[in-house]
Amino acid sequence: MRTRAAVAMEAGKPLEVMEVNLEGPRAGEVLVEIKATGLCHTDEFTRSGADPEGLFPAILGHEGAGVVVEIGPGVTSLEVGDHVIPLYTPECRTCEYCLNPKTNLCQSIRVTQGQGLMPDGTSRFSMLDGTPILHYMGCSTFANHTVLPEIALAKVRKDAPFDKICYIGCGVTTGIGAVINTAKVEIGSRAIVFGLGGIGLNVIQGLRLAGADQIVGVDLNPDKATMGKRFGMTDFVNPSEVSGDLVAHLVELTGGGADYTFDATGNVGVMRTALEAAHKGWGESIIIGVAPAGAEISTRPFQLVTGRSWRGTAFGGARGRTDVPRIVDWYMDGKIEIDPMITHTLTLDQINHGFDLMHEGKSIRAVVEY
Amino acid sequence: MRTRAAVAMEAGKPLEVMEVNLEGPRAGEVLVEIKATGLCHTDEFTRSGADPEGLFPAILGHEGAGVVVEIGPGVTSLEVGDHVIPLYTPECRTCEYCLNPKTNLCQSIRVTQGQGLMPDGTSRFSMLDGTPILHYMGCSTFANHTVLPEIALAKVRKDAPFDKICYIGCGVTTGIGAVINTAKVEIGSRAIVFGLGGIGLNVIQGLRLAGADQIVGVDLNPDKATMGKRFGMTDFVNPSEVSGDLVAHLVELTGGGADYTFDATGNVGVMRTALEAAHKGWGESIIIGVAPAGAEISTRPFQLVTGRSWRGTAFGGARGRTDVPRIVDWYMDGKIEIDPMITHTLTLDQINHGFDLMHEGKSIRAVVEY
Ligand SMILES: [Zn+2]
Ligand SMILES: [Zn+2]
Ligand SMILES: [Zn+2]
Ligand SMILES: [Zn+2]
Repeated sequence: MRTRAAVAMEAGKPLEVMEVNLEGPRAGEVLVEIKATGLCHTDEFTRSGADPEGLFPAILGHEGAGVVVEIGPGVTSLEVGDHVIPLYTPECRTCEYCLNPKTNLCQSIRVTQGQGLMPDGTSRFSMLDGTPILHYMGCSTFANHTVLPEIALAKVRKDAPFDKICYIGCGVTTGIGAVINTAKVEIGSRAIVFGLGGIGLNVIQGLRLAGADQIVGVDLNPDKATMGKRFGMTDFVNPSEVSGDLVAHLVELTGGGADYTFDATGNVGVMRTALEAAHKGWGESIIIGVAPAGAEISTRPFQLVTGRSWRGTAFGGARGRTDVPRIVDWYMDGKIEIDPMITHTLTLDQINHGFDLMHEGKSIRAVVEY
Repeated sequence: MRTRAAVAMEAGKPLEVMEVNLEGPRAGEVLVEIKATGLCHTDEFTRSGADPEGLFPAILGHEGAGVVVEIGPGVTSLEVGDHVIPLYTPECRTCEYCLNPKTNLCQSIRVTQGQGLMPDGTSRFSMLDGTPILHYMGCSTFANHTVLPEIALAKVRKDAPFDKICYIGCGVTTGIGAVINTAKVEIGSRAIVFGLGGIGLNVIQGLRLAGADQIVGVDLNPDKATMGKRFGMTDFVNPSEVSGDLVAHLVELTGGGADYTFDATGNVGVMRTALEAAHKGWGESIIIGVAPAGAEISTRPFQLVTGRSWRGTAFGGARGRTDVPRIVDWYMDGKIEIDPMITHTLTLDQINHGFDLMHEGKSIRAVVEY
C-alpha cells in the first residue's frame, strides 16, 4: 500500500512530506493507522544530526496513537479495530529482561530496532522508486500508516482521544513513570524537578499523583512557573535569581535535601546539582534527560557514601503493554491531565513548523493529527 | 583515672604510647576497658596526615571490644560487666535518621564527634600536664580505657573473644553489611568485588552468606586469590593479565554484567569500572572505599539511564546497637569467619609496627591486645 509520511532524508534537513510504499505486516507484525503523533525532542535530536547513531533516510516519530488495520500471521493479542499506542520500548514478556521485575528494558528486538529495521532485519517502508526507508525507534509514527511488532503495541480503551493519548507513548509515561516506577515515591515525600519542559511537567504531575508534600521546580525560564503550578509544583526556583550556592539553597528549601530529585534537562552539570540536592542518608536522584554524546556526570564519591543514590530511567521504567493502558485510564478518570500540555495541533504538512515551535520554546507538545 | 594509650601527637608522626588522664563518664556516658582493637586504614589515613579533617593530638582507633567498667548517670541500656563493641556510627534510635528505615547515619552526636569531642563538647582525655587530647570517631580504642556515649556501644554476648570480635567494630560489618543491608543481595546473584583487602574479603563472605552464585574478585596482587577463595570467591581476575577492556572482560565473565558490584579500593577509576561492569537494566554498584580528598567519580549518564544504580555505604548500612550483636552471633555460630583475617596480634607498644605491616601488605588485620 501507499501512505503519506514525513521523511527525514538526511541529517539536519527539514522533513519531506511524501507518498511512500508500505508493505503489509509479516508474522508477528501489525499494520496501524496512526491518528495522531507528538513531536518529541528525541525526534529532533535525530533529525538535527546531533544523534551520532542517527540513520537516514528514515521515518521518525515515536509518540503516536492509532487503530489496528491488519494483523500478520500469529498475532494473537490484537485484532483489527483495536486502539493502540506504539511502544519504542517493547514488552515481549519472555526475554531475560522482561522476566526480571527490576527492569523494563526488553531486549528482544533491540538490535534490529537500533538498525532501523523490523525484527526480521528488513524495512517495510520504501520510496516510490524502491529505495528502502528505515524505521525509527521501532515506531515511525510520522507516517499515516506504519507496521510494528505485536510486542510493541499497547492496546488501549476506545473512548480515549488519539490527539491526547499519543503523548502517553513517550513524554507522559516517561515523566510519571520516573516517579512511580523508578523512584517509587512515597506519600509525603519532598522532591525537586530540574527542567520544566514536557517531561518535567509530567514528573510534577506524577509527584502530585504519588502524594508528594513538596514539589520544587527549577528552571531558568520564569515563564515556566505558571504551568508548573498548574500541575502541582509547590515552589519555583530560578537559579539565576539565587545568590550563592544553588545546592545549599535547595537543601535549605527542602529541609535538608529532597527525598527524590529528577533531572529532566539532559545537562550533566544539572545532573550533579540534582544528586547533591538529594537528602543525605536516603535521597535518590533520577536522571531522565538525555545528555549530549560524550558528556559525563561526576561528583565526589562522598555524596554516595553518605547515602545518596544515583539512578536513571528510560520510558519511565514502564512495561508498555502493561502500564500504558493503565495510564490511559488515569487520564480518562481525571487522575492526570494531558490537555493543557498539548499546546499546538498541526497537520502533517506543518510538521517542520512543529520543530520550530519546539526550538522557540513556544510549545510544550505539538501534535500532528492525520 | 590514668590509662595507657597510643597518642597521635601530630600528623605524620608515629603514635606515642604513654600514660594519659581519663575522666570518668558523665551523664549518658560509659567507661569501657578496651580488651582488643584492630588497626584500620582509616586510622592510618588520619595518622599519616592524609585526612584533611584530622585533628591532633588525638587517641585514634575505632575497631575495639571491651567491658563496661562504670556507667554515668542516666545510662539504662548497659551495666558494669557488659561486653561491648564501640560504634563510630552510633544509634540513638530517636533522631530523624534513626527513625528513617532507609539510613543508618545517626546524626545525634555527629558535630561534636567530628570535632573529637564528647557530646557535651569536651574531651575526657588529657596529657599528664593537663593538655586535652581529642577523641577520634567517637571511639579512641587505642587507649586501654575510653569513655563513650551509651548510644555508641553495642552490647554483645560474653563468650565471644575480644581479639576477634573487635574486627566487627569496623571491617567485618562494613563488608558484610554492604552486601546485606545496602545492596540486599538476593540468593543466586552474581557479584564482583574490587579490592581483596580486609573489606573486600568481608564483602566476599557476605556474598557467600547471602547465597550469591558467582563471586568474582578483582585485584592487581595475585597473592590475594588464595584468601579470596578461602572466603567464597568463585573467580579471580587480575586486571594486569586481562588483554583488552576490563569492563568487557567482566561483563563476559558474568554473563552480561554483575547484579551487584562493590568497590573496596577507594580508587575513583576502579569505582567507574565497577559501575560499568554492573548489569544493564538492574545492576547496582556500591562504593565502600574512601577516595582521596578531592577525587571525583564520573561516567556517562547513559550508564544510569540504561538501568544501573550508583550507591554508597558507610559502616555497611548497619545500625550498630541492633545489627552488631547479630553479627557477633553469626561469628559464634560459624556463619561467618574472622579468625583467618586476624593475621597479626600485637601489644600496644608494638602498635606502630602494625601500621608498617599494613603498608607492606603483610597483614589483613593486625590487632592490639591490651
Ligand atoms: Zn520521546
Ligand atoms: Zn522482553
Ligand atoms: Zn575502620
Ligand atoms: Zn540517631
